Amino acid sequence: MKSTNNFAVAFDAYGTLFDVHSVTALAESLFPGKGYELSGTWRAKQLEYCFLRSLGGRYEDFWEITQSALQYTAEKLQLNLAPGSQDRLMAAYLSLAPFPENLSVLKAIKDLGGKLAILSNGNQTMLDHLVRNAGMEGLITYVLSVDQVKKYKPDPQVYQMACNAFSLPAQQINFVSSNGWDVSGATWFGFDTFWVNRQSSPVERLGVAPHGMGQSLTDLLNHLRGTITSV
Amino acid sequence: MKSTNNFAVAFDAYGTLFDVHSVTALAESLFPGKGYELSGTWRAKQLEYCFLRSLGGRYEDFWEITQSALQYTAEKLQLNLAPGSQDRLMAAYLSLAPFPENLSVLKAIKDLGGKLAILSNGNQTMLDHLVRNAGMEGLITYVLSVDQVKKYKPDPQVYQMACNAFSLPAQQINFVSSNGWDVSGATWFGFDTFWVNRQSSPVERLGVAPHGMGQSLTDLLNHLRGTITSV
Repeated sequence: MKSTNNFAVAFDAYGTLFDVHSVTALAESLFPGKGYELSGTWRAKQLEYCFLRSLGGRYEDFWEITQSALQYTAEKLQLNLAPGSQDRLMAAYLSLAPFPENLSVLKAIKDLGGKLAILSNGNQTMLDHLVRNAGMEGLITYVLSVDQVKKYKPDPQVYQMACNAFSLPAQQINFVSSNGWDVSGATWFGFDTFWVNRQSSPVERLGVAPHGMGQSLTDLLNHLRGTITSV
Repeated sequence: MKSTNNFAVAFDAYGTLFDVHSVTALAESLFPGKGYELSGTWRAKQLEYCFLRSLGGRYEDFWEITQSALQYTAEKLQLNLAPGSQDRLMAAYLSLAPFPENLSVLKAIKDLGGKLAILSNGNQTMLDHLVRNAGMEGLITYVLSVDQVKKYKPDPQVYQMACNAFSLPAQQINFVSSNGWDVSGATWFGFDTFWVNRQSSPVERLGVAPHGMGQSLTDLLNHLRGTITSV
């Protein structure tokens, strides 16, 4: 059981607090019938580039990677990506819709005594935009970008940032992500992990299982209520 | 220009010398109508697990990763993977068909004075199986597995193995891969790279371009003939 004195929750941003596929509507309006494929392939390529650049020691920030991934995807799918369309799709990344339950759940966790952080692949500017746009400024104490360490998740140096910010060991930090690979990396690192499995995906076969699992942040709230205790 | 005295070529294995999607036929016979999706998703998941485990410092060998990726994929696609079917699909990985032009091209490169290596994510047993099965034993001098360094491509430690084996600096080694991400990593590392772009894919947006490009190993042979010179 965690005590409410040392109760810290770090959230992944993309796909967890903010709906990455909310760009699909815009993509669909720009490329009718291709929006879903564009946004899905774009997201997969974006992640692949993060992994590759981290492994190869060639860090570039998330904005650049996201743009490169978009250009690759457009060429791959043979879509004619005009500069104006590219700008609009990139801009959509700065105002991704939060999932509907998120704001009230973050408030409830804060009321329980939790201190909140975002720990994300995004660069600081992108994350600050998202937090402001979603009205989360008063709720999130630390907005932590991988740009500080120039590595992407699941490099342990990234997860270590949360320990440093909260001044807590990994085991005393709840880490929440909707990305199975991110939850696995965070579990390797030693966090107390919760997987928001929004798509009902299989558990990744990476040798570890998340400590908790649910379909939405509402399930996380119930999970936290069951594990914390007043002192 | 390279001299024929120091003429070394390192090949990627999966997808470059050996056709990864040759498992599709077996997959299709086991799961009619789903073979293509199974082998494509299996391959993507296999690579993702390599990247993730390397980044997270949780190396596991390629056989284990390949099996985990297969199990994940079967669950994801809701295919009932009986133990016998899993064994057959895994066994297919040990006898992947080489692309049709490969053997004659490897012989021709050797006749030109080239020394050949394989540098692959596969473990040593898997690679030795493939080489033997394809009748390449007399052609390949070094069969180098990432298992020696417990990292996956594009970690620079992997590419360094070829420099150590050939006793040559990276710039004097030709590195050949059909995987755009692998060619990018090898170019970052400093190899003289050639991309066998079998699927006519776009160039990866990773800040570098391969030094040469073609559709098959026959194009590589022509490329090498144009760059080497007798001394």
